[in-house]
Amino acid sequence: MVHAGVMSGSGNLMDFLDEPFPDVGTYEDFHTIDWLREKSRDTDRHRKITSKSKESIWEFIKSLLDAWSGWVVMLLIGLLAGTLAGVIDLAVDWMTDLKEGVCLSAFWYSHEQCCWTSNETTFEDRDKCPLWQKWSELLVNQSEGASAYILNYLMYILWALLFAFLAVSLVRVFAPYACGSGIPEIKTILSGFIIRGYLGKWTLLIKTVTLVLVVSSGLSLGKEGPLVHVACCCGNFFSSLFSKYSKNEGKRREVLSAAAAAGVSVAFGAPIGGVLFSLEEVSYYFPLKTLWRSFFAALVAAFTLRSIPFGNSRLVLFYVEYHTPWRRKTTRLGKYPVLEVIAVTAITAIVAYPNPYTRRSTSELISELFNDCGALESSQLCDYINDPNMTRPVDDIPDRPAGVGVYTAMWQLALALIFKIVITIFTFGMKIPSGLFIPSMAVGAMAGRMVGIGVEQLAYHHHDWIIFRNWCRPGADCVTPGLYAMVGAAACLGGVTRMTVSLVVIMFELTGGLEYIVPLMAAAVTSKWVADAFGKEGIYEAHIHLNGYPFLDVKDEFTHRTLATDVMRPRRGEPPLSVLTQDSMTVEDVETLIKETDYNGFPVVVSRDSERLIGFAQRRELILAIKNARQRQEGIVSDSVMYFTEEPPELPANSPHPLKLRRVLNLSPFTVTDHTPMETVVDIFRKLGLRQCLVTRSGRLLGIITKKDVLRHMAQMANQDPESIMFN
Amino acid sequence: MVHAGVMSGSGNLMDFLDEPFPDVGTYEDFHTIDWLREKSRDTDRHRKITSKSKESIWEFIKSLLDAWSGWVVMLLIGLLAGTLAGVIDLAVDWMTDLKEGVCLSAFWYSHEQCCWTSNETTFEDRDKCPLWQKWSELLVNQSEGASAYILNYLMYILWALLFAFLAVSLVRVFAPYACGSGIPEIKTILSGFIIRGYLGKWTLLIKTVTLVLVVSSGLSLGKEGPLVHVACCCGNFFSSLFSKYSKNEGKRREVLSAAAAAGVSVAFGAPIGGVLFSLEEVSYYFPLKTLWRSFFAALVAAFTLRSIPFGNSRLVLFYVEYHTPWRRKTTRLGKYPVLEVIAVTAITAIVAYPNPYTRRSTSELISELFNDCGALESSQLCDYINDPNMTRPVDDIPDRPAGVGVYTAMWQLALALIFKIVITIFTFGMKIPSGLFIPSMAVGAMAGRMVGIGVEQLAYHHHDWIIFRNWCRPGADCVTPGLYAMVGAAACLGGVTRMTVSLVVIMFELTGGLEYIVPLMAAAVTSKWVADAFGKEGIYEAHIHLNGYPFLDVKDEFTHRTLATDVMRPRRGEPPLSVLTQDSMTVEDVETLIKETDYNGFPVVVSRDSERLIGFAQRRELILAIKNARQRQEGIVSDSVMYFTEEPPELPANSPHPLKLRRVLNLSPFTVTDHTPMETVVDIFRKLGLRQCLVTRSGRLLGIITKKDVLRHMAQMANQDPESIMFN
Repeated sequence: MVHAGVMSGSGNLMDFLDEPFPDVGTYEDFHTIDWLREKSRDTDRHRKITSKSKESIWEFIKSLLDAWSGWVVMLLIGLLAGTLAGVIDLAVDWMTDLKEGVCLSAFWYSHEQCCWTSNETTFEDRDKCPLWQKWSELLVNQSEGASAYILNYLMYILWALLFAFLAVSLVRVFAPYACGSGIPEIKTILSGFIIRGYLGKWTLLIKTVTLVLVVSSGLSLGKEGPLVHVACCCGNFFSSLFSKYSKNEGKRREVLSAAAAAGVSVAFGAPIGGVLFSLEEVSYYFPLKTLWRSFFAALVAAFTLRSIPFGNSRLVLFYVEYHTPWRRKTTRLGKYPVLEVIAVTAITAIVAYPNPYTRRSTSELISELFNDCGALESSQLCDYINDPNMTRPVDDIPDRPAGVGVYTAMWQLALALIFKIVITIFTFGMKIPSGLFIPSMAVGAMAGRMVGIGVEQLAYHHHDWIIFRNWCRPGADCVTPGLYAMVGAAACLGGVTRMTVSLVVIMFELTGGLEYIVPLMAAAVTSKWVADAFGKEGIYEAHIHLNGYPFLDVKDEFTHRTLATDVMRPRRGEPPLSVLTQDSMTVEDVETLIKETDYNGFPVVVSRDSERLIGFAQRRELILAIKNARQRQEGIVSDSVMYFTEEPPELPANSPHPLKLRRVLNLSPFTVTDHTPMETVVDIFRKLGLRQCLVTRSGRLLGIITKKDVLRHMAQMANQDPESIMFN
Repeated sequence: MVHAGVMSGSGNLMDFLDEPFPDVGTYEDFHTIDWLREKSRDTDRHRKITSKSKESIWEFIKSLLDAWSGWVVMLLIGLLAGTLAGVIDLAVDWMTDLKEGVCLSAFWYSHEQCCWTSNETTFEDRDKCPLWQKWSELLVNQSEGASAYILNYLMYILWALLFAFLAVSLVRVFAPYACGSGIPEIKTILSGFIIRGYLGKWTLLIKTVTLVLVVSSGLSLGKEGPLVHVACCCGNFFSSLFSKYSKNEGKRREVLSAAAAAGVSVAFGAPIGGVLFSLEEVSYYFPLKTLWRSFFAALVAAFTLRSIPFGNSRLVLFYVEYHTPWRRKTTRLGKYPVLEVIAVTAITAIVAYPNPYTRRSTSELISELFNDCGALESSQLCDYINDPNMTRPVDDIPDRPAGVGVYTAMWQLALALIFKIVITIFTFGMKIPSGLFIPSMAVGAMAGRMVGIGVEQLAYHHHDWIIFRNWCRPGADCVTPGLYAMVGAAACLGGVTRMTVSLVVIMFELTGGLEYIVPLMAAAVTSKWVADAFGKEGIYEAHIHLNGYPFLDVKDEFTHRTLATDVMRPRRGEPPLSVLTQDSMTVEDVETLIKETDYNGFPVVVSRDSERLIGFAQRRELILAIKNARQRQEGIVSDSVMYFTEEPPELPANSPHPLKLRRVLNLSPFTVTDHTPMETVVDIFRKLGLRQCLVTRSGRLLGIITKKDVLRHMAQMANQDPESIMFN
């Protein structure tokens, strides 16, 4: 039974929802949500709870639980995301070592864990403890020599291929959405788009497992972007447990924003950086309340990760990805994703093994490049010629001439740099989980370290040059190559993602280098300027455009002189707008209109003559209401007149029972006049998260502008006048 | 001469501005700006420059300069704010020491600088170098004994009174706006309110000078809030040099947001914290572009401050203020601001001098409270009883029993804590520049340190208690009282301001304690929860409400079920809305309407019968246009018909020349329907920064809602249902 309508549009909706229609209020796949509507639905829910809470103690407790459920969800997300990140770290450690050998005491121990339990106590022996056997030792009982090297090389390649094959097969068969980093899609989802299953439980499971596999296989990718995706899947899972979030797409996105922060927090051990990343890079609607909740979720996640036993050090790095998919879209390999992964893995493993800087894991490489050379440092990069008379403390070493090891390291680094750039381009966009943060940081760090060593040696050998004379006395410690590497990593990452504040915060949470904040900030600003000169799009925006998602970027400025009337449909020469009249169309008329068009909704006007707008009706809700009325209400036939007014229209005596549809009418549709500058319209769409907006002149309905119309118009304008992009 | 109108409302405005009307486009004092209009004016300006830039090389260079002027302004702000902060620091150091003595070699040296130049080289002697003379030494040649103490005490009080008197007189006579911290007003200005002179050059000068005076006088206040005000004055000054910013109130506010970030950056040496503070606490409209620029300004400011010679250490703390003015509004002293300042200064100086924890500057106090006790520490707080057999390295000292000094320090701290709380309440709201950051941090740090010492001693003497047993073995270093002080300071500050993310970032930029991020975050979240339980307003919001500024807080949630029709004017029973008709009113009719009402603008409708809305005309622009037409256009008399249409109306043959006013008509006024929930209306006002919004039903004009109506309604609703505040 249908009862009398209420005044407010959103109020109607709630009454409507009380009735057992299954699907009202949800959206179809690949559609955009209506933020204003979601918000007013949540307010209605909230008001109901508040007024009920005065009725009994139990209802009061329920209302308190509801008020705190946001924090509870954050707590759960933090706990699960932290645990998963910890487990992934442990599994990656073990499987990476498995490529080189196995622990005899217990095969599930990583190299480091295996040797902890051994009796050797000195530092050097630990690394070569007898319980840990390289494959050559285990299989042919040789630890040195050419044949052992070749056997180990082969085993390394075999394991890498096995891991990569497993990963790509799992993704292909069980969860196609688990590939890539996921950040561009999450960004699109947070802006209000619906992609069903993208954050589902299946994606969560498969992405977690395959992430371990691909990172262990040694491919040139990072686990940080995928970790953000995993955290968002956790967020989606927990929000489905609370009706406050599961039934409201807007509220659910607030949870997802916080989950993204928790994801970055565990990816890097950088809780503040995570919150800022979510704010600066990922989120669309980020009120202060979400800021506080994100902060809490990031805190819990970081804390959980640190509490995991055997959990490792600070340098658990982060994600991002190169915009290379179009490149591979044209290659023949792209059609055979499994073969492609196998081929890239084989090349990676074959080329990477001989060079020490590509064989080790990328985060270890970055850690070594950032490191400053102490007097006792044994790394090849620290092979300087020491002054035999030196009596200074170990912490304060003057610049020294480079030894043979440093020159070798320079060549190896140069080769590794070239290899890393090339292979990373090919790795991204493969059908496996992959992030770009670590690879792009590694590229920047390698380049930075090489420049740093170069400047250091120049300063040592030519300290009378003008550029060195004023600040570098002989025997002083003027140049720290590790700092150059850190700045290089920040600059490279900044150029790829165009992050600024969150980048610097993440870098110093990662390295603890609070005193280097000024060079890091300078690097971030410079890399942003330089990269912006080549085009304003960061990697995520490029990916989003490439995939054609309807994403209205807050960073794009719209500065053209067009008006709403230039963008609205119908254009000149097109058939008139499909509208409903408030009290003169029959059920059949409406059903025909619905069948013949695929619009998401229809404006309702007083009559075709006056065209004065009274509201807007969603297609989906119209269909459901008519279906429901036909099934349950007596006397509703195809000839029944439909009316959206409070009172039924005056009808001839023998006409069939009319159908009241006021409840599906949104009485407060958004309108602008035809003279409104498009700039303002774009602003309204962005800030209020609209799906569509009606265009009127002097109260008469002229047309409609949808989010897709806005995006299409912006793209057109940008193509017409690409030069305008450089002025802001 | 008036020429033919252009289509777009904003386009009209620019044409209009080309003509020599002085005041169009500016706003009156204590009025609110229209963000959308400012934005579209800027786009127009920008479009003009872009199209001109293709005409000649010179225009192209001009357009490039215009595009970079934003970064140039940021650079200038950073340089000036950093320099001013450095100069203030140096002046405060000198004048604070002047209260105790004077340097014989050069009176403008501070105690520290004076003793640098002395020949004494050991660390203890430096402090007592002969060139620095206490007042008792200089005047009566005694350095010890009761009479010397009393003389020094008196000189201390005298200098404090002199400084305070000078400060309050300067503020009173030259720049009344220089009093207080300025943050609430800046927040209001950034939200779009106009307060002329608040950021003027005169305020800048007087606030800088008086800030030095009041801080040196030893009053319980901080310099950090006022420094933000000073930086914003710099921002306002530099933006007046570039027409891009000086002529556009919206763009000017983007500069001011960045200037606030630079202010916090120099106040604390915390550039990232400054950006976040501006984002979280102060700004209203903060696009990503402003984020990047703020980041740059904060960077330059921090760098400049550090480059100042003799510039001091990291611990240059920050601002905030207590909400106590209402308390003093009822006292008799409030009427005599100079007397009030003198009285409070006298009490402060008299009570503060005998207690070592109140005599020294508050930032030194905080620094000492944060400090951990090494083995060689000479501070009274570190007077522990050392184990004579102890052979551990100095950095790793186990918990020790407290000595006499620590017990004395506890008593003195307790007294200082009480005094600080009481005197801070009385200090704030006095007519001098004053910030609350340092005092509230000091209160938190004192309480935290006392709790820390208490827990430490409990753990030492009762390490078998359940709470200590599991994690604190005897002889281990379990409790660090300095960390308790740091967490206490963060918690107290968080409770006062309700900052979260920016608080934590500022705290760790301030202390370098990146490893304490988890306890700091926990303290921030807890203090926010506890404080929110007593009311959601932070100190700035409380101040803004107290002063009745029209500030629409983004943090307040509006969850009531009212509709636009409940809020709009005219209410039932009120006279109808004052409207203009598009082509039937005479100049005299309009002039009468303007004289009889004080509305900021009038809706324009087709006719009084149809009431279909065609646009909106600003009062100010109407007045100017009529005045101009009467002076310059021939044939315009009181009986002339005014028309807003493209074509003049058909008039009787002998009627006077009609006046075309289409150019002052905004053709895209913002409208909502009468059924729109107020929640949505509030959202629109907030996000789009509107001044007013028209209410229609089926295309007919029903009423108007202004920003003040919205604020009044929100206040009413909050009073009706105070309980609703606890649910979110």
